[in-house]
Amino acid sequence: MDSALAIPNREDLKLSEPYNAVEALLALVGDDLTYVNDLIDQNIGSSVPLIPQIAGHLIRSGGKRLRPLIALASARMCGYEGTNHVKLAAAIEFIHTATLLHDDVVDTSSLRRGRTSANVLWGNPASILVGDYLFSKSFNLMVEVGNLRVLDILATASRVIAEGEILQLASASQVHTDESTYLKIVASKTAALFAAAAQIGPVIASRPAGEEASLESYGYNLGIAFQLADDALDYDGSQVDLGKTPGDDFREGKITLPVVLAFAKGDDEERDFWRRVIEKSEQNESDFKRAQELIKRHGALHQTLDLAHHYGEKARHALQSVPDNIYRQALDGVIGFCVDRDY
Amino acid sequence: MDSALAIPNREDLKLSEPYNAVEALLALVGDDLTYVNDLIDQNIGSSVPLIPQIAGHLIRSGGKRLRPLIALASARMCGYEGTNHVKLAAAIEFIHTATLLHDDVVDTSSLRRGRTSANVLWGNPASILVGDYLFSKSFNLMVEVGNLRVLDILATASRVIAEGEILQLASASQVHTDESTYLKIVASKTAALFAAAAQIGPVIASRPAGEEASLESYGYNLGIAFQLADDALDYDGSQVDLGKTPGDDFREGKITLPVVLAFAKGDDEERDFWRRVIEKSEQNESDFKRAQELIKRHGALHQTLDLAHHYGEKARHALQSVPDNIYRQALDGVIGFCVDRDY
Repeated sequence: MDSALAIPNREDLKLSEPYNAVEALLALVGDDLTYVNDLIDQNIGSSVPLIPQIAGHLIRSGGKRLRPLIALASARMCGYEGTNHVKLAAAIEFIHTATLLHDDVVDTSSLRRGRTSANVLWGNPASILVGDYLFSKSFNLMVEVGNLRVLDILATASRVIAEGEILQLASASQVHTDESTYLKIVASKTAALFAAAAQIGPVIASRPAGEEASLESYGYNLGIAFQLADDALDYDGSQVDLGKTPGDDFREGKITLPVVLAFAKGDDEERDFWRRVIEKSEQNESDFKRAQELIKRHGALHQTLDLAHHYGEKARHALQSVPDNIYRQALDGVIGFCVDRDY
Repeated sequence: MDSALAIPNREDLKLSEPYNAVEALLALVGDDLTYVNDLIDQNIGSSVPLIPQIAGHLIRSGGKRLRPLIALASARMCGYEGTNHVKLAAAIEFIHTATLLHDDVVDTSSLRRGRTSANVLWGNPASILVGDYLFSKSFNLMVEVGNLRVLDILATASRVIAEGEILQLASASQVHTDESTYLKIVASKTAALFAAAAQIGPVIASRPAGEEASLESYGYNLGIAFQLADDALDYDGSQVDLGKTPGDDFREGKITLPVVLAFAKGDDEERDFWRRVIEKSEQNESDFKRAQELIKRHGALHQTLDLAHHYGEKARHALQSVPDNIYRQALDGVIGFCVDRDY
């Protein structure tokens, strides 16, 4: 595995229980992921030095490469034996990275994966443009593969992500966002790319339409479960994650499901609290603790996790209708990783 | 012609000499352009209202649709008789619009085509995300056409545009940018999409590689000529354009070729002037007049126009090697429109 890319390799992965699912996935498609990382390295090179600097900063920041891993495993599960899944996994990581770059500008974030974000280090213009570069590059990679259905799936996923972000803007920092609107945003912003990653495997392996639909459903529901678990994690002080500091979402005034649910159940005084800390971003030292208490009191954390499990089960169910093999078992394990990783 | 889209139609075009080239083009492919406009209208619809609002604001702001027109005429010139050129012309306009939306955020511009720009009206986040949306949508349209070479040409053009913008960032507001760096930026930012627009005609018409190369060269050189003429126009007080107010580039502190050339030939005092007005954007009432005088004194306007003509001639030469017909004559006329339109 390319040491230049901060991806845990099989030897370094001394992780406890919930991480074993990713370890199992890496044991199966770790070599493929090495090729993905090499391809990423080759493709962020440019005569314009800012491009490899900024793209590399984010891509090498130790993301879990969950989307590429799912794409690789899905293709292998479907019996795909070529090399195009590697190019498509790299394309998916490029799309993901491009959306993160733009996201951090849109949200005026200052941290990403525990590091200072690119927009702070290099400014908004560079983040916007390098995002555009990576996005275009992802289509170049897809064209190399030459499968028009795959191109359509990933172009549509990219479009849906943008739509989700715009929908989120429209309800930005409004704590009275209702649960269904919030889930719609998550479906677009997060689940669409997970769905596409899982779906392209059966497409390039020329599997029947039913299998394609099942894997798309797996990715979609997994993506929602993943995001909801991530939402919960931010307010769950009992566990420590490897990549996320509790309270990050809160301090950035992000609307997440625990907040939406706690606000809906709160009294007038509590709603004033949420409006102040989230909508106006006026926070003091003790506010995060208060937020955690309110979320706990109203069962909002529990409810968020229940919903994450619900979507996890839907993902698990979708997997039942594809042929069982070691790849399917690994993909099944990823559900547990996404839903149970930190509590 | 769809009255919802602020494109001049043939009847309304009562324009003097240099505009007749666009009029001639519209006479030939005006019906195709109507379909392009309809398709654009259909494709900016979304359940998220901000998308048609922002996209429509820019797309209906009376741009000349030069890139779609070139794509349409090039396809017809090559004997193409299908309808895919309409989809591709719409895709090109979407890419162009997406880059304008991002450009205005990057440059913190407040005006675009004489109207308040989208970033001022709706904010940077919305402009970034609607740009992303349009960009993805353009790939959906290309996938409908299903020609992988076209997809590659337009993905590459988009990537080169982003590279050009990033290169420009790196030399942003530096008046000592040299001429060759500046031309490299123009080649990427502007000429790449003109080249792609002209090239896809022979591709979808399955014309020989030589013809494709000639039309790509036509578009590329036309694009450079177009931008340099645009640069000159900003400092040429003698004429009035329909879309551009002289001094806009200057007031936004944009580095353009007249500035680059005048700075290179200026004495210390003049260089201090350029650094103040362009790099620091400290401008007073009389500064634009002074800038015009300096540019005139050093022959920088003349030199910029000479270079525009030089590239115009290269574009004209490239057209010689494709079969002569009324479309080629119209495309030839566009060169004059781009180079001579305002002086």
